[in-house]
Amino acid sequence: MKAEQIQIRSHQREELIDITGLAEDYLGRSGVVDGFLVLFVPHTTAAVTINENADPAVTRDIVYKLHKELPPTDDYLHSEGNSDAHIKSSLVGPSLQMIISGGKLILGRWQAIYFCEFDGPRIRNLLMKAIAD
Amino acid sequence: MKAEQIQIRSHQREELIDITGLAEDYLGRSGVVDGFLVLFVPHTTAAVTINENADPAVTRDIVYKLHKELPPTDDYLHSEGNSDAHIKSSLVGPSLQMIISGGKLILGRWQAIYFCEFDGPRIRNLLMKAIAD
Amino acid sequence: MKAEQIQIRSHQREELIDITGLAEDYLGRSGVVDGFLVLFVPHTTAAVTINENADPAVTRDIVYKLHKELPPTDDYLHSEGNSDAHIKSSLVGPSLQMIISGGKLILGRWQAIYFCEFDGPRIRNLLMKAIAD
Repeated sequence: MKAEQIQIRSHQREELIDITGLAEDYLGRSGVVDGFLVLFVPHTTAAVTINENADPAVTRDIVYKLHKELPPTDDYLHSEGNSDAHIKSSLVGPSLQMIISGGKLILGRWQAIYFCEFDGPRIRNLLMKAIAD
Repeated sequence: MKAEQIQIRSHQREELIDITGLAEDYLGRSGVVDGFLVLFVPHTTAAVTINENADPAVTRDIVYKLHKELPPTDDYLHSEGNSDAHIKSSLVGPSLQMIISGGKLILGRWQAIYFCEFDGPRIRNLLMKAIAD
Repeated sequence: MKAEQIQIRSHQREELIDITGLAEDYLGRSGVVDGFLVLFVPHTTAAVTINENADPAVTRDIVYKLHKELPPTDDYLHSEGNSDAHIKSSLVGPSLQMIISGGKLILGRWQAIYFCEFDGPRIRNLLMKAIAD
């Protein structure tokens, strides 16, 4: 299935945005029944992850702790003041792969897919591509 | 090849469990000779990684340091007391992909695949799916 | 497409080495037009990531901060003195998957692929495999 690029608007400097529905919509359009789905973030100060969506305090705690351990200010040389965001991007990672089975994305009961904004607010892109067995 | 779900029992709150043999067994059943293997953890307080299996002190040191830098207690809002485990899950990551060549999983001499338990002990699930070229 | 293994020489203990050209060369040889590319590091004290290549201060800042937060010395039991490198390897991750579209690797404007050396200098291996739709 052809790769698709979608836009995501973030509203804070650091924020996790639930994109599970966007990934499921793409999967429906793709028609892939069994295979893999890859999500790819074409930015160097953002990432993609999976975590809990039942309690919104979980994503707040993730953002809080990453900010506390990796604050924007340190003895950084990069002049844009967002070296912390570049580091978070590499630690959380720019891509995710998931399993497609029976036309559905396999996710655990508490799992949602999150676009991780570490240097917003911005309009961001996300790439999605499904491949069939 | 159809995705398979297996169960893993953890015995400590934080623990790395060698699952290399389980992945190789699945690969044998799959019959895939050349392609990719994806492992996926359908939980939000666990992860999957690759690291050294020659010296058990390595996995001990990984668990020790992640616990020291991300202890269970902080100014967290999530009431279950396991926000540290959610953060570790996103940092280490919920999935891994590996290369299958000549019917074998390509792993370096010192590499083993580890299920990472960050909020055990529990019975956990792990999904595996191989895809052929 | 058959997996290929290439060699990379690192020159410092901790260093990010731009391997974008090596991945694009492999993709050209593979002939894959639409699909996925997987990179896999068969070592337990190295990793692979994507980050900015416009300002070299970014990779310097990543190396600097990971070293500061995860220094070689702590109450580690692994006797080789490189437990920090093993931990960085699992946090950044041993593999990456990217989307191939129209014979090109999809990368954002500022993105480059980096081999992450955490315990060099050494001669290292990197595996690459492309799969077509």
